[in-house]
Amino acid sequence: MIFLDAAATTPVRREVLDAMWPYLTGEFGNPSSHHSLGEAAADALARARAAVAGVLGCRPGEVTFTSGGTEADNLAVKGIALARQAADPTLNRVVISSVEHPAVEESARYLERFHGFAVDVIGVDATGLVTPEALAAALRPETALVSVMYANNEVGTVQPIARLASLARSRGIPFHTDAVQAAGWLPLDVKALGVDALSISGHKLGAPKGCGVLYIRGRTRIEPLVHGGGQERGRRSGTENVAGAVGLASALTLASGRQMQVAEHVAALRDAFIDAVLAGVPGAVLTGHPSERLPSVASFCFPGTSGESVLLELERQGIVCSSGSACAAGSDAPSPVLTALGIAAEVAQTAVRFSFDSGVSSQDLDTAALAVRDAVASVRTLGRA
Amino acid sequence: MIFLDAAATTPVRREVLDAMWPYLTGEFGNPSSHHSLGEAAADALARARAAVAGVLGCRPGEVTFTSGGTEADNLAVKGIALARQAADPTLNRVVISSVEHPAVEESARYLERFHGFAVDVIGVDATGLVTPEALAAALRPETALVSVMYANNEVGTVQPIARLASLARSRGIPFHTDAVQAAGWLPLDVKALGVDALSISGHKLGAPKGCGVLYIRGRTRIEPLVHGGGQERGRRSGTENVAGAVGLASALTLASGRQMQVAEHVAALRDAFIDAVLAGVPGAVLTGHPSERLPSVASFCFPGTSGESVLLELERQGIVCSSGSACAAGSDAPSPVLTALGIAAEVAQTAVRFSFDSGVSSQDLDTAALAVRDAVASVRTLGRA
Repeated sequence: MIFLDAAATTPVRREVLDAMWPYLTGEFGNPSSHHSLGEAAADALARARAAVAGVLGCRPGEVTFTSGGTEADNLAVKGIALARQAADPTLNRVVISSVEHPAVEESARYLERFHGFAVDVIGVDATGLVTPEALAAALRPETALVSVMYANNEVGTVQPIARLASLARSRGIPFHTDAVQAAGWLPLDVKALGVDALSISGHKLGAPKGCGVLYIRGRTRIEPLVHGGGQERGRRSGTENVAGAVGLASALTLASGRQMQVAEHVAALRDAFIDAVLAGVPGAVLTGHPSERLPSVASFCFPGTSGESVLLELERQGIVCSSGSACAAGSDAPSPVLTALGIAAEVAQTAVRFSFDSGVSSQDLDTAALAVRDAVASVRTLGRA
Repeated sequence: MIFLDAAATTPVRREVLDAMWPYLTGEFGNPSSHHSLGEAAADALARARAAVAGVLGCRPGEVTFTSGGTEADNLAVKGIALARQAADPTLNRVVISSVEHPAVEESARYLERFHGFAVDVIGVDATGLVTPEALAAALRPETALVSVMYANNEVGTVQPIARLASLARSRGIPFHTDAVQAAGWLPLDVKALGVDALSISGHKLGAPKGCGVLYIRGRTRIEPLVHGGGQERGRRSGTENVAGAVGLASALTLASGRQMQVAEHVAALRDAFIDAVLAGVPGAVLTGHPSERLPSVASFCFPGTSGESVLLELERQGIVCSSGSACAAGSDAPSPVLTALGIAAEVAQTAVRFSFDSGVSSQDLDTAALAVRDAVASVRTLGRA
């Protein structure tokens, strides 16, 4: 099997599992307990936090462990907006882009339904980019928060986060970015990015499912999403998933250490793959930005097919990929992301996303490109569009 | 070391880790993905859900996996109250007991701060029991939800959940119970209990930290806490922690299978330990109910000491226990639970809780009882109270 669905999830890296192992076995203390077992767990958590902070270029106290990227997004969007609204009731709008992950989009909609917020959705251009001009036009005195994702999960387009964040912050508005897909591939220095909050998911970068991180800048006020015993400096209650936090820190550190060289290498493989697919499949269209894209994502539409049929053909040939986001797999509705890029519904239904992990090989991608050519031809011939 | 702090957390059982292993290694699919890897993960999740449903006596669709007991409590309290208020704005009160875990208490306070709810707190008697009369007096036409814990984490008192739930439901009010401490020790059949929602934490019963369950009865409406991709039938978004869910199901199944005999056995050991401590320590007071208590919890106050000093002495002798809840460890404030039982602040400061896992031995408890006698005597002699 050639696994080209790494944007959906990745296997736990061996080194990560090794790092986690003590906290799944003998070192099982509750970090809140004031005895030796508890203190060992608290120490492990502190080391994990420091390691994450090292990658993000922030202080350990600015790192909150969560149960995943979705929870981190919820905490950021709801938590910052609610805290700001509580301090100043006129702050009752949030700005998001039209290509956000549902974790951000639905959090904004929750604010709308339950807390009287208006949601300002800024469009993207045909490559999926949010322009600074579009953001500037959307900002108002009542804007409590801006949330724009770092890199898109379906088409891989990378936003100019530093410019967007700078723009929001010049108006005194906190800026959150969902870096779930970017983590492991793009620089995560939060000071260089200039963001106030940034979400990461463990399982997208070789840590297990069930762990994530939210960076929250300095003294940014935030209402917790999960209330209770006051863990994580009161920002996220519940006994900490020590093994998960250790695993996430390990995976993030590993990815960060090799990020530049791996990103360049994989981007080159991606470009060769994109060229091969475009050359081999008549009418194939690359979706997303031609250059400002994740090294790990090649996404297409294959007009005259259905994406699901192409996926089935590919899986028969041992190539595992997806139509887009895993969250929406099996849905009949056209992807809102592709629709936001101006792609017609009937073309959006033909989308196929290939996403790579750091170990992807050129041989595998050569094999995959040929398989794509054959699969699309086969689906078109059989009229299964 | 003799570990007598199992109410804070427990080691992952070997069988549980074995059950999880495939999902931490080769079977790493995202359950939402529509390919073989994803389907294998979805199948594992479905089996875990069915196993949990088997223990709870409910349908699999009534089981929602969460990141832990605290999140399950938050989802139940906030989610049910908000959904009811959205359907009928006059429903703007919640009833909780005075001995709830902060996960429930702080969720109720969030409803108060952000959603205009009033929180009616019902008192307990000197043994920690909520009486049906007290609950009946607190219920009003505006009550959206009642939440009373199954068994208390600090003093082990077990509430008459079936009677309390029946009372609430006779008025058409949903009833939630935090069963985090009860799970593994007390019957969890949700129909016999008559509850609408019930929370469980994995790491209290031999599964890892970072996984929990919320049972939600039938068509009970609930607003999600974590919004996004719509996993868990829309009730809890975010890629599912497959390994955690499998681990929780395994641990719960194991605990359920041996529950009756283990509970009786451990309760007998507990009673012998309580007798030994009360006999060996002049002035020692058992906190909580004399008989309606968890098999696994023996909790005391030792007037004329400080609980923290006794804990230090005990740890020096190789006995690991706690002053009460791990969440509040190190806090200078007297325990709100002990205060709610009418225990004076200066006595509450002398609390020590011993909590057992299913493998506790009479030898260990004999050793511990002697150590307690010596530790209290030592602290009293040194005047370190």
